[in-house]
Amino acid sequence: MSKLPPDVRRARRPEHKELRLASILDAARTLAADKGVRAVTLTDIAAAAGINKSAVLRYVETREDIYLRLTAEGWTQWAAAVGEALGDRTDGTADELADVLSRTVVDRPLFCDLLAHAPLNLERHVSADAVLTYKLAALEALEAMAEDCARFLPALGTAAARELVGTVSLLAGALWQIASPPEALARLYAEEPRLAHARVDLLPRLTGSARALIVGLAG
Amino acid sequence: MSKLPPDVRRARRPEHKELRLASILDAARTLAADKGVRAVTLTDIAAAAGINKSAVLRYVETREDIYLRLTAEGWTQWAAAVGEALGDRTDGTADELADVLSRTVVDRPLFCDLLAHAPLNLERHVSADAVLTYKLAALEALEAMAEDCARFLPALGTAAARELVGTVSLLAGALWQIASPPEALARLYAEEPRLAHARVDLLPRLTGSARALIVGLAG
Repeated sequence: MSKLPPDVRRARRPEHKELRLASILDAARTLAADKGVRAVTLTDIAAAAGINKSAVLRYVETREDIYLRLTAEGWTQWAAAVGEALGDRTDGTADELADVLSRTVVDRPLFCDLLAHAPLNLERHVSADAVLTYKLAALEALEAMAEDCARFLPALGTAAARELVGTVSLLAGALWQIASPPEALARLYAEEPRLAHARVDLLPRLTGSARALIVGLAG
Repeated sequence: MSKLPPDVRRARRPEHKELRLASILDAARTLAADKGVRAVTLTDIAAAAGINKSAVLRYVETREDIYLRLTAEGWTQWAAAVGEALGDRTDGTADELADVLSRTVVDRPLFCDLLAHAPLNLERHVSADAVLTYKLAALEALEAMAEDCARFLPALGTAAARELVGTVSLLAGALWQIASPPEALARLYAEEPRLAHARVDLLPRLTGSARALIVGLAG
Protein backbone atom coordinates (compact mmCIF):
# COMPACT_ATOMS: atom_id res chain seq x y z
CA MET A 1 0.00 0.00 0.00
CA SER A 2 1.38 3.40 -0.96
CA LYS A 3 1.89 5.92 1.81
CA LEU A 4 0.97 8.80 -0.49
CA PRO A 5 -2.46 10.35 -0.01
CA PRO A 6 -5.01 9.03 -2.58
CA ASP A 7 -5.13 12.13 -4.77
CA VAL A 8 -1.39 11.89 -5.43
CA ARG A 9 -1.87 8.30 -6.61
CA ARG A 10 -4.19 9.60 -9.35
CA ALA A 11 -1.43 9.58 -11.96
CA ARG A 12 -0.85 13.30 -11.60
CA ARG A 13 2.50 13.29 -13.33
CA PRO A 14 2.39 13.69 -17.12
CA GLU A 15 4.04 10.35 -17.88
CA HIS A 16 1.55 8.58 -15.61
CA LYS A 17 -1.33 10.32 -17.34
CA GLU A 18 0.04 9.13 -20.67
CA LEU A 19 0.26 5.57 -19.40
CA ARG A 20 -3.29 5.66 -18.06
CA LEU A 21 -4.58 7.06 -21.34
CA ALA A 22 -2.67 4.42 -23.30
CA SER A 23 -4.18 1.63 -21.20
CA ILE A 24 -7.69 3.06 -21.78
CA LEU A 25 -7.10 3.22 -25.55
CA ASP A 26 -5.63 -0.31 -25.56
CA ALA A 27 -8.68 -1.67 -23.78
CA ALA A 28 -11.05 0.14 -26.17
CA ARG A 29 -9.11 -1.12 -29.18
CA THR A 30 -9.16 -4.75 -28.06
CA LEU A 31 -12.87 -4.70 -27.16
CA ALA A 32 -13.92 -3.06 -30.44
CA ALA A 33 -11.77 -5.38 -32.55
CA ASP A 34 -13.51 -8.28 -30.81
CA LYS A 35 -17.17 -7.24 -30.88
CA GLY A 36 -17.45 -4.13 -33.05
CA VAL A 37 -17.35 -0.45 -32.07
CA ARG A 38 -21.12 -0.16 -31.65
CA ALA A 39 -21.28 -2.77 -28.89
CA VAL A 40 -18.59 -1.40 -26.55
CA THR A 41 -19.65 0.76 -23.58
CA LEU A 42 -17.55 3.04 -21.38
CA THR A 43 -18.21 0.61 -18.52
CA ASP A 44 -16.69 -2.23 -20.59
CA ILE A 45 -13.62 -0.13 -21.35
CA ALA A 46 -13.12 0.91 -17.72
CA ALA A 47 -13.43 -2.71 -16.58
CA ALA A 48 -10.98 -3.97 -19.21
CA ALA A 49 -8.49 -1.22 -18.36
CA GLY A 50 -8.85 -1.94 -14.64
CA ILE A 51 -9.73 1.68 -13.87
CA ASN A 52 -13.04 2.82 -12.49
CA LYS A 53 -15.41 4.65 -14.79
CA SER A 54 -15.24 8.06 -13.11
CA ALA A 55 -11.43 7.85 -13.24
CA VAL A 56 -11.58 7.11 -16.99
CA LEU A 57 -13.44 10.40 -17.38
CA ARG A 58 -10.43 12.28 -16.03
CA TYR A 59 -8.50 11.23 -19.17
CA VAL A 60 -11.15 11.32 -21.89
CA GLU A 61 -14.42 13.19 -22.41
CA THR A 62 -16.71 10.34 -23.43
CA ARG A 63 -16.74 6.85 -24.92
CA GLU A 64 -16.91 8.57 -28.33
CA ASP A 65 -13.79 10.65 -27.52
CA ILE A 66 -11.88 7.38 -26.98
CA TYR A 67 -12.98 6.03 -30.35
CA LEU A 68 -12.34 9.31 -32.13
CA ARG A 69 -8.73 9.20 -30.83
CA LEU A 70 -8.45 5.67 -32.23
CA THR A 71 -9.88 6.87 -35.57
CA ALA A 72 -7.17 9.57 -35.70
CA GLU A 73 -4.56 6.93 -34.90
CA GLY A 74 -6.01 4.78 -37.72
CA TRP A 75 -5.65 7.65 -40.23
CA THR A 76 -2.01 8.16 -39.24
CA GLN A 77 -1.22 4.45 -39.52
CA TRP A 78 -3.06 4.10 -42.84
CA ALA A 79 -1.07 7.03 -44.26
CA ALA A 80 2.18 5.46 -43.06
CA ALA A 81 1.30 2.12 -44.67
CA VAL A 82 0.37 3.80 -47.97
CA GLY A 83 3.57 5.87 -47.93
CA GLU A 84 5.65 2.78 -47.30
CA ALA A 85 3.93 0.75 -50.04
CA LEU A 86 4.19 3.50 -52.68
CA GLY A 87 7.76 4.46 -51.79
CA ASP A 88 9.45 7.01 -54.02
CA ARG A 89 8.21 5.62 -57.33
CA THR A 90 6.85 8.05 -59.90
CA ASP A 91 5.85 5.47 -62.54
CA GLY A 92 2.91 3.79 -60.81
CA THR A 93 -0.21 2.49 -62.54
CA ALA A 94 -3.89 2.92 -61.67
CA ASP A 95 -4.14 -0.80 -60.86
CA GLU A 96 -1.20 -0.66 -58.47
CA LEU A 97 -2.50 2.45 -56.73
CA ALA A 98 -6.00 0.96 -56.36
CA ASP A 99 -4.49 -2.20 -54.88
CA VAL A 100 -2.34 -0.31 -52.36
CA LEU A 101 -5.05 2.10 -51.18
CA SER A 102 -7.62 -0.68 -50.79
CA ARG A 103 -5.42 -3.36 -49.26
CA THR A 104 -3.91 -1.05 -46.64
CA VAL A 105 -7.32 0.11 -45.39
CA VAL A 106 -8.98 -3.33 -45.53
CA ASP A 107 -6.01 -4.63 -43.48
CA ARG A 108 -7.32 -2.37 -40.68
CA PRO A 109 -10.83 -3.66 -39.87
CA LEU A 110 -11.20 -1.61 -36.69
CA PHE A 111 -10.32 1.54 -38.64
CA CYS A 112 -12.89 0.63 -41.33
CA ASP A 113 -15.54 0.20 -38.62
CA LEU A 114 -14.53 3.55 -37.05
CA LEU A 115 -14.64 5.36 -40.42
CA ALA A 116 -18.40 4.82 -40.60
CA HIS A 117 -19.00 5.65 -36.94
CA ALA A 118 -16.95 8.87 -36.88
CA PRO A 119 -19.30 11.30 -38.69
CA LEU A 120 -22.50 9.47 -37.73
CA ASN A 121 -21.84 9.04 -34.02
CA LEU A 122 -18.39 9.86 -32.65
CA GLU A 123 -18.05 13.48 -33.80
CA ARG A 124 -21.45 14.26 -32.27
CA HIS A 125 -20.59 13.33 -28.70
CA VAL A 126 -17.36 15.18 -28.02
CA SER A 127 -16.33 18.81 -27.49
CA ALA A 128 -15.46 21.14 -30.37
CA ASP A 129 -11.79 20.91 -29.28
CA ALA A 130 -11.82 17.14 -29.56
CA VAL A 131 -13.42 17.26 -33.03
CA LEU A 132 -10.88 19.83 -34.18
CA THR A 133 -7.95 17.72 -32.94
CA TYR A 134 -9.40 14.69 -34.72
CA LYS A 135 -10.11 16.53 -37.98
CA LEU A 136 -6.63 18.04 -38.13
CA ALA A 137 -5.00 14.64 -37.61
CA ALA A 138 -7.22 13.08 -40.30
CA LEU A 139 -6.54 15.94 -42.73
CA GLU A 140 -2.80 15.74 -42.17
CA ALA A 141 -2.86 12.02 -42.96
CA LEU A 142 -5.12 12.56 -45.98
CA GLU A 143 -2.83 15.30 -47.30
CA ALA A 144 0.26 13.09 -46.91
CA MET A 145 -1.52 10.28 -48.78
CA ALA A 146 -2.70 12.65 -51.52
CA GLU A 147 0.89 13.80 -52.07
CA ASP A 148 2.17 10.22 -52.09
CA CYS A 149 -0.53 9.14 -54.56
CA ALA A 150 0.10 12.13 -56.85
CA ARG A 151 3.85 11.41 -56.87
CA PHE A 152 3.23 7.70 -57.60
CA LEU A 153 0.81 8.47 -60.44
CA PRO A 154 1.57 12.01 -61.65
CA ALA A 155 -1.39 12.09 -64.07
CA LEU A 156 -3.63 12.27 -61.00
CA GLY A 157 -2.56 15.61 -59.52
CA THR A 158 -2.84 16.49 -55.82
CA ALA A 159 -6.40 17.85 -55.83
CA ALA A 160 -7.80 14.74 -57.52
CA ALA A 161 -5.65 12.54 -55.27
CA ARG A 162 -7.18 14.26 -52.24
CA GLU A 163 -10.66 13.51 -53.57
CA LEU A 164 -9.61 9.93 -54.30
CA VAL A 165 -8.30 9.23 -50.79
CA GLY A 166 -11.33 10.88 -49.18
CA THR A 167 -13.71 8.87 -51.35
CA VAL A 168 -11.88 5.58 -50.74
CA SER A 169 -12.09 6.25 -46.99
CA LEU A 170 -15.87 6.83 -47.22
CA LEU A 171 -16.36 3.69 -49.29
CA ALA A 172 -14.16 1.60 -46.97
CA GLY A 173 -16.32 2.71 -44.04
CA ALA A 174 -19.63 2.09 -45.79
CA LEU A 175 -18.65 -1.19 -47.49
CA TRP A 176 -17.14 -2.61 -44.31
CA GLN A 177 -20.47 -2.23 -42.52
CA ILE A 178 -22.25 -4.10 -45.33
CA ALA A 179 -19.54 -6.78 -45.52
CA SER A 180 -19.80 -7.30 -41.73
CA PRO A 181 -23.54 -7.80 -41.26
CA PRO A 182 -25.26 -8.75 -38.01
CA GLU A 183 -25.82 -12.48 -37.54
CA ALA A 184 -29.43 -12.59 -38.74
CA LEU A 185 -28.52 -10.78 -41.95
CA ALA A 186 -25.42 -12.94 -42.52
CA ARG A 187 -27.71 -15.99 -42.38
CA LEU A 188 -30.04 -14.38 -44.93
CA TYR A 189 -27.11 -13.64 -47.26
CA ALA A 190 -26.02 -17.28 -47.01
CA GLU A 191 -29.46 -18.81 -47.52
CA GLU A 192 -31.38 -16.46 -49.79
CA PRO A 193 -30.42 -16.61 -53.48
CA ARG A 194 -32.40 -13.42 -54.21
CA LEU A 195 -29.85 -11.51 -52.12
CA ALA A 196 -26.88 -12.59 -54.25
CA HIS A 197 -26.34 -9.06 -55.56
CA ALA A 198 -26.52 -7.56 -52.07
CA ARG A 199 -23.49 -9.47 -50.74
CA VAL A 200 -20.25 -7.51 -50.57
CA ASP A 201 -16.77 -9.02 -50.82
CA LEU A 202 -14.90 -6.10 -49.29
CA LEU A 203 -11.41 -6.09 -50.83
CA PRO A 204 -12.33 -6.80 -54.50
CA ARG A 205 -15.33 -4.45 -54.34
CA LEU A 206 -13.32 -1.57 -52.86
CA THR A 207 -10.39 -2.19 -55.20
CA GLY A 208 -12.70 -2.14 -58.24
CA SER A 209 -14.28 1.16 -57.22
CA ALA A 210 -10.89 2.67 -56.38
CA ARG A 211 -9.52 1.64 -59.78
CA ALA A 212 -12.50 3.17 -61.61
CA LEU A 213 -12.15 6.40 -59.61
CA ILE A 214 -8.42 6.63 -60.36
CA VAL A 215 -8.94 6.05 -64.08
CA GLY A 216 -11.75 8.60 -64.16
CA LEU A 217 -9.87 11.21 -62.10
CA ALA A 218 -6.55 10.79 -63.92
CA GLY A 219 -8.07 10.55 -67.42
CA MET B 1 -68.10 7.93 -29.11
CA SER B 2 -68.26 4.67 -31.04
CA LYS B 3 -70.58 1.98 -29.74
CA LEU B 4 -68.21 -0.78 -30.89
CA PRO B 5 -66.22 -2.54 -28.18
CA PRO B 6 -62.62 -1.18 -27.94
CA ASP B 7 -60.89 -4.13 -29.62
CA VAL B 8 -63.02 -3.69 -32.74
CA ARG B 9 -61.98 -0.03 -32.91
CA ARG B 10 -58.33 -1.15 -33.22
CA ALA B 11 -58.34 -0.78 -36.98
CA ARG B 12 -58.85 -4.48 -37.53
CA ARG B 13 -59.93 -4.19 -41.13
CA PRO B 14 -57.08 -4.26 -43.69
CA GLU B 15 -57.82 -0.79 -45.08
CA HIS B 16 -57.81 0.65 -41.55
CA LYS B 17 -54.49 -1.03 -40.82
CA GLU B 18 -53.08 0.51 -44.00
CA LEU B 19 -54.28 3.95 -42.92
CA ARG B 20 -52.81 3.59 -39.46
CA LEU B 21 -49.48 2.44 -40.89
CA ALA B 22 -49.49 5.33 -43.37
CA SER B 23 -50.07 7.86 -40.58
CA ILE B 24 -47.17 6.35 -38.58
CA LEU B 25 -44.86 6.54 -41.61
CA ASP B 26 -46.00 10.12 -42.34
CA ALA B 27 -45.25 11.20 -38.78
CA ALA B 28 -41.81 9.52 -38.87
CA ARG B 29 -41.03 11.13 -42.23
CA THR B 30 -41.95 14.64 -41.09
CA LEU B 31 -40.05 14.38 -37.79
CA ALA B 32 -36.87 13.00 -39.42
CA ALA B 33 -36.93 15.59 -42.21
CA ASP B 34 -37.10 18.23 -39.49
CA LYS B 35 -34.48 17.09 -36.98
CA GLY B 36 -32.62 14.17 -38.56
CA VAL B 37 -33.23 10.43 -38.30
CA ARG B 38 -30.92 9.97 -35.31
CA ALA B 39 -32.94 12.30 -33.06
CA VAL B 40 -36.41 10.81 -33.53
CA THR B 41 -37.75 8.34 -30.94
CA LEU B 42 -40.68 5.94 -31.16
CA THR B 43 -42.40 8.08 -28.50
CA ASP B 44 -42.08 11.16 -30.77
CA ILE B 45 -43.55 9.25 -33.70
CA ALA B 46 -46.48 7.89 -31.68
CA ALA B 47 -47.24 11.38 -30.34
CA ALA B 48 -47.07 12.98 -33.80
CA ALA B 49 -49.29 10.25 -35.28
CA GLY B 50 -51.76 10.61 -32.40
CA ILE B 51 -51.57 6.89 -31.57
CA ASN B 52 -50.24 5.49 -28.33
CA LYS B 53 -46.88 3.79 -28.36
CA SER B 54 -48.06 0.27 -27.64
CA ALA B 55 -50.60 0.64 -30.47
CA VAL B 56 -47.81 1.72 -32.86
CA LEU B 57 -46.10 -1.59 -32.08
CA ARG B 58 -49.08 -3.47 -33.51
CA TYR B 59 -48.20 -2.06 -36.95
CA VAL B 60 -44.39 -2.01 -36.92
CA GLU B 61 -41.69 -3.95 -35.07
CA THR B 62 -39.49 -1.09 -33.85
CA ARG B 63 -38.53 2.52 -34.53
CA GLU B 64 -35.88 1.11 -36.89
CA ASP B 65 -38.50 -0.91 -38.78
CA ILE B 66 -40.35 2.36 -39.50
CA TYR B 67 -37.22 3.97 -40.90
CA LEU B 68 -36.23 0.90 -42.87
CA ARG B 69 -39.65 1.03 -44.57
CA LEU B 70 -38.98 4.70 -45.41
CA THR B 71 -35.54 3.74 -46.77
CA ALA B 72 -37.19 1.18 -49.07
CA GLU B 73 -39.68 3.84 -50.18
CA GLY B 74 -36.72 6.18 -50.86
CA TRP B 75 -35.04 3.58 -53.10
CA THR B 76 -38.24 3.12 -55.11
CA GLN B 77 -38.73 6.87 -55.52
CA TRP B 78 -35.09 7.44 -56.43
CA ALA B 79 -35.30 4.74 -59.11
CA ALA B 80 -38.47 6.32 -60.51
CA ALA B 81 -36.83 9.76 -60.65
CA VAL B 82 -33.74 8.35 -62.39
CA GLY B 83 -35.88 6.43 -64.87
CA GLU B 84 -37.91 9.52 -65.68
CA ALA B 85 -34.82 11.72 -66.12
CA LEU B 86 -32.97 9.24 -68.35
CA GLY B 87 -36.02 8.36 -70.44
CA ASP B 88 -35.49 6.08 -73.41
CA ARG B 89 -32.28 7.70 -74.65
CA THR B 90 -29.39 5.49 -75.66
CA ASP B 91 -26.90 8.25 -76.47
CA GLY B 92 -26.19 9.64 -73.00
CA THR B 93 -22.85 10.98 -71.82
CA ALA B 94 -20.92 10.33 -68.59
CA ASP B 95 -21.48 13.95 -67.53
CA GLU B 96 -25.23 13.71 -68.02
CA LEU B 97 -25.48 10.41 -66.19
CA ALA B 98 -23.39 11.72 -63.27
CA ASP B 99 -25.64 14.78 -63.04
CA VAL B 100 -28.87 12.76 -63.05
CA LEU B 101 -27.76 10.14 -60.50
CA SER B 102 -26.39 12.76 -58.12
CA ARG B 103 -29.11 15.38 -58.42
CA THR B 104 -31.96 12.89 -57.94
CA VAL B 105 -30.46 11.49 -54.73
CA VAL B 106 -29.36 14.86 -53.30
CA ASP B 107 -32.94 16.09 -53.92
CA ARG B 108 -33.98 13.52 -51.28
CA PRO B 109 -32.21 14.60 -48.07
CA LEU B 110 -34.16 12.24 -45.80
CA PHE B 111 -33.23 9.32 -48.08
CA CYS B 112 -29.55 10.38 -47.96
CA ASP B 113 -29.71 10.45 -44.15
CA LEU B 114 -31.39 7.02 -44.12
CA LEU B 115 -28.80 5.52 -46.51
CA ALA B 116 -26.11 5.93 -43.85
CA HIS B 117 -28.31 4.74 -41.00
CA ALA B 118 -29.64 1.60 -42.74
CA PRO B 119 -26.61 -0.73 -42.50
CA LEU B 120 -25.19 0.88 -39.36
CA ASN B 121 -28.34 0.98 -37.25
CA LEU B 122 -31.67 0.18 -38.89
CA GLU B 123 -30.93 -3.31 -40.26
CA ARG B 124 -29.66 -4.33 -36.82
CA HIS B 125 -32.88 -3.71 -34.93
CA VAL B 126 -35.52 -5.50 -36.98
CA SER B 127 -36.47 -9.12 -37.69
CA ALA B 128 -34.90 -11.15 -40.50
CA ASP B 129 -38.21 -10.89 -42.39
CA ALA B 130 -38.13 -7.08 -42.22
CA VAL B 131 -34.51 -6.95 -43.45
CA LEU B 132 -35.34 -9.31 -46.29
CA THR B 133 -38.34 -7.21 -47.37
CA TYR B 134 -36.17 -4.08 -47.28
CA LYS B 135 -33.24 -5.64 -49.15
CA LEU B 136 -35.48 -7.01 -51.91
CA ALA B 137 -37.10 -3.60 -52.43
CA ALA B 138 -33.70 -1.88 -52.51
CA LEU B 139 -32.28 -4.48 -54.92
CA GLU B 140 -35.28 -4.19 -57.25
CA ALA B 141 -34.81 -0.41 -57.40
CA LEU B 142 -31.05 -0.76 -57.87
CA GLU B 143 -31.55 -3.28 -60.68
CA ALA B 144 -34.05 -0.99 -62.45
CA MET B 145 -31.59 1.92 -62.19
CA ALA B 146 -28.71 -0.24 -63.42
CA GLU B 147 -30.73 -1.20 -66.50
CA ASP B 148 -31.74 2.42 -67.13
CA CYS B 149 -28.12 3.62 -66.76
CA ALA B 150 -26.80 0.87 -69.05
CA ARG B 151 -29.38 1.74 -71.71
CA PHE B 152 -28.58 5.47 -71.43
CA LEU B 153 -24.82 4.87 -71.67
CA PRO B 154 -24.34 1.50 -73.38
CA ALA B 155 -20.53 1.53 -72.89
CA LEU B 156 -21.21 0.97 -69.18
CA GLY B 157 -22.90 -2.46 -69.27
CA THR B 158 -25.34 -3.67 -66.62
CA ALA B 159 -22.83 -5.16 -64.17
CA ALA B 160 -20.75 -1.96 -64.03
CA ALA B 161 -23.96 0.10 -63.84
CA ARG B 162 -25.03 -1.96 -60.82
CA GLU B 163 -21.70 -1.22 -59.14
CA LEU B 164 -22.05 2.45 -60.06
CA VAL B 165 -25.51 2.88 -58.55
CA GLY B 166 -24.53 0.97 -55.41
CA THR B 167 -21.39 3.07 -54.98
CA VAL B 168 -23.22 6.36 -55.59
CA SER B 169 -25.77 5.36 -52.93
CA LEU B 170 -23.00 4.63 -50.41
CA LEU B 171 -21.27 7.94 -51.17
CA ALA B 172 -24.54 9.88 -50.99
CA GLY B 173 -25.14 8.43 -47.51
CA ALA B 174 -21.62 9.08 -46.25
CA LEU B 175 -21.18 12.54 -47.83
CA TRP B 176 -24.59 13.72 -46.62
CA GLN B 177 -23.57 13.05 -43.01
CA ILE B 178 -20.39 15.09 -43.47
CA ALA B 179 -22.22 17.88 -45.30
CA SER B 180 -24.81 18.04 -42.49
CA PRO B 181 -22.59 18.35 -39.41
CA PRO B 182 -23.80 18.91 -35.85
CA GLU B 183 -23.90 22.56 -34.79
CA ALA B 184 -20.54 22.63 -32.98
CA LEU B 185 -18.78 21.16 -36.01
CA ALA B 186 -20.59 23.49 -38.44
CA ARG B 187 -19.23 26.42 -36.41
CA LEU B 188 -15.72 24.97 -36.61
CA TYR B 189 -16.02 24.57 -40.39
CA ALA B 190 -17.10 28.21 -40.68
CA GLU B 191 -14.41 29.63 -38.40
CA GLU B 192 -11.35 27.42 -38.77
CA PRO B 193 -9.35 27.95 -41.97
CA ARG B 194 -7.33 24.77 -41.33
CA LEU B 195 -10.53 22.77 -41.94
CA ALA B 196 -11.08 24.17 -45.45
CA HIS B 197 -10.36 20.79 -47.06
CA ALA B 198 -12.72 18.99 -44.68
CA ARG B 199 -15.83 20.88 -45.79
CA VAL B 200 -18.11 19.06 -48.21
CA ASP B 201 -20.39 20.72 -50.74
CA LEU B 202 -22.67 17.74 -51.33
CA LEU B 203 -23.95 18.01 -54.91
CA PRO B 204 -20.69 19.00 -56.70
CA ARG B 205 -18.65 16.54 -54.63
CA LEU B 206 -20.99 13.62 -55.34
CA THR B 207 -21.34 14.57 -59.01
CA GLY B 208 -17.54 14.71 -59.40
CA SER B 209 -17.06 11.27 -57.87
CA ALA B 210 -19.95 9.82 -59.90
CA ARG B 211 -18.46 11.22 -63.11
CA ALA B 212 -15.02 9.75 -62.33
CA LEU B 213 -16.60 6.37 -61.52
CA ILE B 214 -18.61 6.36 -64.76
CA VAL B 215 -15.57 7.24 -66.87
CA GLY B 216 -13.48 4.60 -65.12
CA LEU B 217 -16.16 1.89 -65.32
CA ALA B 218 -17.16 2.60 -68.94
CA GLY B 219 -13.59 3.11 -70.21
